[in-house]
Amino acid sequence: MAFRLRPQEPEFYDLFGEAGRNLVVAARLVQELASAPPAERAGVVERLREVEHAGDDVTHRILKKVNTSFVTPFDREDIYALASRIDDVLDLMEEAGDRVVLYDVDGLPAKTREVADVLLAASEQTADALPRLRSMKGLESYWIEVNRLENEADRLYRDMIGDLFRSGADALHVMKVKEVLDTLEAAADALEHVADAVQTVVAKES
Amino acid sequence: MAFRLRPQEPEFYDLFGEAGRNLVVAARLVQELASAPPAERAGVVERLREVEHAGDDVTHRILKKVNTSFVTPFDREDIYALASRIDDVLDLMEEAGDRVVLYDVDGLPAKTREVADVLLAASEQTADALPRLRSMKGLESYWIEVNRLENEADRLYRDMIGDLFRSGADALHVMKVKEVLDTLEAAADALEHVADAVQTVVAKES
Amino acid sequence: MAFRLRPQEPEFYDLFGEAGRNLVVAARLVQELASAPPAERAGVVERLREVEHAGDDVTHRILKKVNTSFVTPFDREDIYALASRIDDVLDLMEEAGDRVVLYDVDGLPAKTREVADVLLAASEQTADALPRLRSMKGLESYWIEVNRLENEADRLYRDMIGDLFRSGADALHVMKVKEVLDTLEAAADALEHVADAVQTVVAKES
Repeated sequence: MAFRLRPQEPEFYDLFGEAGRNLVVAARLVQELASAPPAERAGVVERLREVEHAGDDVTHRILKKVNTSFVTPFDREDIYALASRIDDVLDLMEEAGDRVVLYDVDGLPAKTREVADVLLAASEQTADALPRLRSMKGLESYWIEVNRLENEADRLYRDMIGDLFRSGADALHVMKVKEVLDTLEAAADALEHVADAVQTVVAKES
Repeated sequence: MAFRLRPQEPEFYDLFGEAGRNLVVAARLVQELASAPPAERAGVVERLREVEHAGDDVTHRILKKVNTSFVTPFDREDIYALASRIDDVLDLMEEAGDRVVLYDVDGLPAKTREVADVLLAASEQTADALPRLRSMKGLESYWIEVNRLENEADRLYRDMIGDLFRSGADALHVMKVKEVLDTLEAAADALEHVADAVQTVVAKES
Repeated sequence: MAFRLRPQEPEFYDLFGEAGRNLVVAARLVQELASAPPAERAGVVERLREVEHAGDDVTHRILKKVNTSFVTPFDREDIYALASRIDDVLDLMEEAGDRVVLYDVDGLPAKTREVADVLLAASEQTADALPRLRSMKGLESYWIEVNRLENEADRLYRDMIGDLFRSGADALHVMKVKEVLDTLEAAADALEHVADAVQTVVAKES
């Protein structure tokens, strides 16, 4: 790595740390939702919405800091991209939960819980990695692990979609469940896009 | 606000003014479409397509001006983002109209007209706000009002989707209507994204 | 055109040339898939996935080169945008193929082959145009031709969707076929977005 002084901006790293922790809280709620009896779902989704609002707040603080700082620890556009992509993950987790309640989905496939487990594992990896942007160390293994988890989510998604279309369920049920599964799969993709944004930062510094 | 000279570039503000007025014209056509008898819909959508083309033309003129100007009144990337997001709104309004005709949708929910009213109100707010980029005044209230309107559109959307799935209508009808409603809801979101892009400009200048 | 020295960076143009050739290979596989008997589809999609991975690799090499080069032949953000948009085309072609196999679609409309022909023609135009970024010559006719082809793809799409909804087919079949057609139409749009990104570069240099 070329020797280069990065201005110390503790607050940027703190804000990304907070953003990472929000992802973990949201993923735990998705996990809870996947097992919750229908009567308790609305309450879980309400808490998911609160985490999503907390995430919006962190994003706005990061963007405000980018816009008002004379120097930033890495390129402004990369900070912006990273914050936006973390935001996308929270939006998608909240949207998936919201759809379960709005469509009053009965009978999510059992493997939905496994997808939720994968989302939680990838969120934990992300929350662990974001504070390491300070030292730029150990980020390669994070990127590899999130990619592996995304492949796992994709495999589960494909199994469930295949089963769903073969199930003989009526078309309206298929539409509802498919939209929930599509959104969870998009959340797994979005976690991979966060890791890609981290890689972009690492590539410039190395 | 820090004292800072912004280069006077009247044409940029004029072009954004024109872009704002296109939004209002398009929203009025969406409103007209929501009440039009089926036989008249194709004509309304044709006019919507013309407005969308006029919008493309304004966007190209803005981008060309960004690319050939030595100084710009605010950051190039923010001008680009703002123009693109206005373009997205027009695209989505046109797409919603287009879907109504292409799918030959019969029986749009009555509340579609209320969504069209909300889109028109948000478009008028935007058209009023864009010329105020020159003075950077009164933009906070615009942002708040568009956010309020987006929440209102979202509430209407959710009511209609809930009703649609409970209606006992056949799945093909649900698919068609849902896609039109999804696109109108995306247009309301896109108007909020325009307001967010305006806020980014305001945050840098204040 | 204002006289301006562009640094000679042969490898950038070579990489975009390679990216263009990948598009043509992928489009040929989409064409093959549109006529393949069901038993042979999975093999075609496997090859499509390999091309998509090869495309990812080219994109990463372009981004790495952007990040580590002191000078670039045109603006970094434009190189980034162009590489990303080419990537989007490959993703969508692969996704369309994947959906055909995952949903086990029987009876794609006959016009799907015509859409595949249009995608191949637009991909060939793109592969021809990308190396011309070096001289910046003959790119206007490319942009016009890709726009014409996108309109042709759109016309075919609309015909097929209209037919599909009027066909009396069951809703699950409509859902499956519509998603494949939507994805192919998005691939044609994405080829137009590549041409738009090329135009942005041309506009800055002229």
